[in-house]
Amino acid sequence: MLPTVNNNIVIALDAMGGDFAPLSVIQGASFFLDNLVDPGIKVFFHIYGDQKEVSPLLAKYKKVGSNSEFIHCSDNVLANDKPSFALRHRKDSSMKAAIEAVKKGKASGVVSSGNTGALMAISRFILGTLPNIYRPAIVSALPSKTKSFVLLDLGANVDCNADSLFQFALMGNIFAKIALKVDNPEVALLNIGTEEIKGTDSVRGAFELLRNVQGINFKGYIEASEFLEGNIDVIVADGFVGNVMLKTAEATASTFISLMKQEVLNSWMAKILVGVLLKSKLKRVLARFNPKVRNGAMFLGLNGIVVKSHGNSDAISFAHAIKFAVNAISENLNQMIISEVSNIE
Amino acid sequence: MLPTVNNNIVIALDAMGGDFAPLSVIQGASFFLDNLVDPGIKVFFHIYGDQKEVSPLLAKYKKVGSNSEFIHCSDNVLANDKPSFALRHRKDSSMKAAIEAVKKGKASGVVSSGNTGALMAISRFILGTLPNIYRPAIVSALPSKTKSFVLLDLGANVDCNADSLFQFALMGNIFAKIALKVDNPEVALLNIGTEEIKGTDSVRGAFELLRNVQGINFKGYIEASEFLEGNIDVIVADGFVGNVMLKTAEATASTFISLMKQEVLNSWMAKILVGVLLKSKLKRVLARFNPKVRNGAMFLGLNGIVVKSHGNSDAISFAHAIKFAVNAISENLNQMIISEVSNIE
Repeated sequence: MLPTVNNNIVIALDAMGGDFAPLSVIQGASFFLDNLVDPGIKVFFHIYGDQKEVSPLLAKYKKVGSNSEFIHCSDNVLANDKPSFALRHRKDSSMKAAIEAVKKGKASGVVSSGNTGALMAISRFILGTLPNIYRPAIVSALPSKTKSFVLLDLGANVDCNADSLFQFALMGNIFAKIALKVDNPEVALLNIGTEEIKGTDSVRGAFELLRNVQGINFKGYIEASEFLEGNIDVIVADGFVGNVMLKTAEATASTFISLMKQEVLNSWMAKILVGVLLKSKLKRVLARFNPKVRNGAMFLGLNGIVVKSHGNSDAISFAHAIKFAVNAISENLNQMIISEVSNIE
Repeated sequence: MLPTVNNNIVIALDAMGGDFAPLSVIQGASFFLDNLVDPGIKVFFHIYGDQKEVSPLLAKYKKVGSNSEFIHCSDNVLANDKPSFALRHRKDSSMKAAIEAVKKGKASGVVSSGNTGALMAISRFILGTLPNIYRPAIVSALPSKTKSFVLLDLGANVDCNADSLFQFALMGNIFAKIALKVDNPEVALLNIGTEEIKGTDSVRGAFELLRNVQGINFKGYIEASEFLEGNIDVIVADGFVGNVMLKTAEATASTFISLMKQEVLNSWMAKILVGVLLKSKLKRVLARFNPKVRNGAMFLGLNGIVVKSHGNSDAISFAHAIKFAVNAISENLNQMIISEVSNIE
């Protein structure tokens, strides 16, 4: 059963996490309520943060104020806190209190733009993993040339055996059904070649496990050279490789954006001859791949819905992260994972 | 001593490897002789390939014809051959014969655009590794925002222990001195965070080894998000991670290039208002990051100079791969590696 307050889905918000918090969080909640609530769904917030900073915002964004309960927290996790430090010493933090709300059944999910490592460590400690899940994974939906795809693990686990990669594939498959709205997602393992003999023991072991399982549309290996072609819905890798892939793609995209701006958009030719028209066209192309406009990542395999919004989220991207959490809850993501894993193993 | 014929450096060319072979190889040799030979250096080729295909080209490109010896080979390694198959069954191939020329002292180095895995497997089998080197690595010089950097391993070794990563750092350091012409290259290990506790056991082990060694300008960890910033000269990773990083960057760059062409360069506005001027500016920006214009990779740690030109090399990029091999030979790359490793270990 979903925890509800007057038949609303309750989301716990860490108001203090992220570069532009708490403004981005409260503005984001407001944007969500105004623009992103699906028919038939009602959302209520538990907002955790520093009273002095948050109260004025709740007074200003009245719809959030009247659709939420505010809980003061005397501390918050800092962006540079080590996960182990945050776990041990940020006991009165807004992040920890928001996660505990999920544990206690006061909320169905939590959204934070705070420190990723700390959010994973504290979530894992407080919520634990779903039944039979060895390790939680960080997943995100990313743009490709033609459609979105799902990539996991993005950094929760540096070394993974075949069983863990196999479970990431199962969880990613469920996640893709909800996040991408695809019925039978195409799932592939990231490898450095497409022949069966390539790769680490873990990757080859996961290949064997996936090849022999029913109910997964397993497509074998994918190379990084193909990752933006839009042929695959779910790409599975260990957290070291997935993290490097994501950051490499983001860095390459950002570099192109800055080179374009510097060399082309700011040239006198662009200014004089083209004006706003070509600029806007170019900007639209670039924006699709700009990491800043994406709405963050989700922690899969935890006994609770935890959505990590980008650290530099603005209100709109934070609103989309809330939307993400609400969808995962209303579509029973974790129940689907539990049932998939218990059916297969 | 370098093998010489009339005081020339001798390079063995696999004329049959690559998408545009043998034309790209012979044209490339011609371009090299005309444009890329440093003063005081003379280069002579041993060219291995199919007589029917290569002889007419040698007749056409006369300078190559008169600066080379041609050796007919009845077979060649195909692009899709598995390395193990090529090693066992391509005994009369141009690739194998070219590598054997180095083993026999007839040539000082080999350049091939052929199948990377086969080139590594056959080179390793025939040439072996340098004294005290555990594993050879694939290295390439890549563009960043401000300057070039060196990345290794690009895929020769999927699992690496700390000792192997440490040796990659030593070899990459030497390679960077020659390829980038930097006196004291800044070396970093690729990791998914910059704190000391992050990463796999291998990466953390290599960190400890590098931190405690003299003569390496070790800068600690680098994250993939920083790889194009131009802060580091040598980035060290295992072959799985390095391969994913390279291919992810290339795929992202290519995707941007095609999106730009499609959305901006082909728009009526660009055509009518801007014409060739802005197009050429945009193309110049894009070209710097186009993998097709790079001149390939080198295998480090083998007992012989082996340069792998891109499979889709044209004449000019093949010519630069030859230049790369000549530099490595004339600057005693392998002697420097031997001396570095023996000094340290």
